[in-house]
Amino acid sequence: MTRLEQQINFIIEVDKLKNIIRQNYLVDGSRKEDDADHSWHLALMCAILSEHANEKIDVLKTMVMVLIHDLVEIDAGDTYAYDSNANVSKRERELEAADRIFRLLPADQAQEIRALWDEFEEGRTPEAKFAVTLDKVQPLLLNSGSDGKSWKEHKVTLSQILKRNENTGEGSQALWDYGYQLIQKNVDNNNIINQ
Amino acid sequence: MTRLEQQINFIIEVDKLKNIIRQNYLVDGSRKEDDADHSWHLALMCAILSEHANEKIDVLKTMVMVLIHDLVEIDAGDTYAYDSNANVSKRERELEAADRIFRLLPADQAQEIRALWDEFEEGRTPEAKFAVTLDKVQPLLLNSGSDGKSWKEHKVTLSQILKRNENTGEGSQALWDYGYQLIQKNVDNNNIINQ
Repeated sequence: MTRLEQQINFIIEVDKLKNIIRQNYLVDGSRKEDDADHSWHLALMCAILSEHANEKIDVLKTMVMVLIHDLVEIDAGDTYAYDSNANVSKRERELEAADRIFRLLPADQAQEIRALWDEFEEGRTPEAKFAVTLDKVQPLLLNSGSDGKSWKEHKVTLSQILKRNENTGEGSQALWDYGYQLIQKNVDNNNIINQ
Repeated sequence: MTRLEQQINFIIEVDKLKNIIRQNYLVDGSRKEDDADHSWHLALMCAILSEHANEKIDVLKTMVMVLIHDLVEIDAGDTYAYDSNANVSKRERELEAADRIFRLLPADQAQEIRALWDEFEEGRTPEAKFAVTLDKVQPLLLNSGSDGKSWKEHKVTLSQILKRNENTGEGSQALWDYGYQLIQKNVDNNNIINQ
């Protein structure tokens, strides 16, 4: 197989990300979002909002990171943030998926993309912290925009959301402040259970 | 309105891109692709395939270009490539859309993103040429992968496809060579009408 054929095989395989459905709805509430939609939204947010990162970030690197951060869900599925049983086995399933999917690429790119995914998962560099912030704030925008549809369906509580967002401010205090306001608004109008 | 609020309003508005449905199917044929799925796929292709560009490109710039290239379809709709009536009014509808949508951003970013969209539409710089190549080759991968489902539904002919792809090789000869092979294969197995 040529290098280009390997790359194209990867590009075709990742088409499956479009069939992984998340729990949150689009802003208009018409349907749940798919993982490719979500990843596109994060990449565009990265382009528009990078000035709000707490530390200076490499925008290209962060953008590639968000474009690939959910590819493991092709095999591992989307684990709902507030499903504590499923979250126990999540890490193991995602590691196996990363081994299979990134290795479709030529070795140098497989290594590079795997390193970016590991960096995102560890969440320690400025780029990973900002990517994590985007990944947490984007569903707040969609959930609030759709009048809390997904929060209400899952009877989500304020303490669950705050626990999940413990580190969201590390990538961008400005974006987390904005997100926190949205959460408060949705507690006030009973979209989020106040406990 | 603060700068961040303007940016967030834009980010929320462009959620609508996920409801713009294209004519081509996903590789598994299960449903038609939406514009955000498509834009995500192009951005990832840009990250993985930039080495095949005919000329050296700025990858970050090209990536932002493909992330925003279809936003005008939020107002103007997706115009099917082989619908010649709709294509007459397409340019005008898209210019109006660009005026409205990009201006949601703070002035400096509105100007920057509009310039990128204009550059894509003109297709003259190395980045725009490569973005156009990705935009043309990606549906070939999906159409061929789904056994020509969309081509067969629309009774598309080889000459229509070749006319549409007149300039596809300008961004990447290697990717166009690959796409051309796919087209030939789909002529041979009667997914594309040989005339």
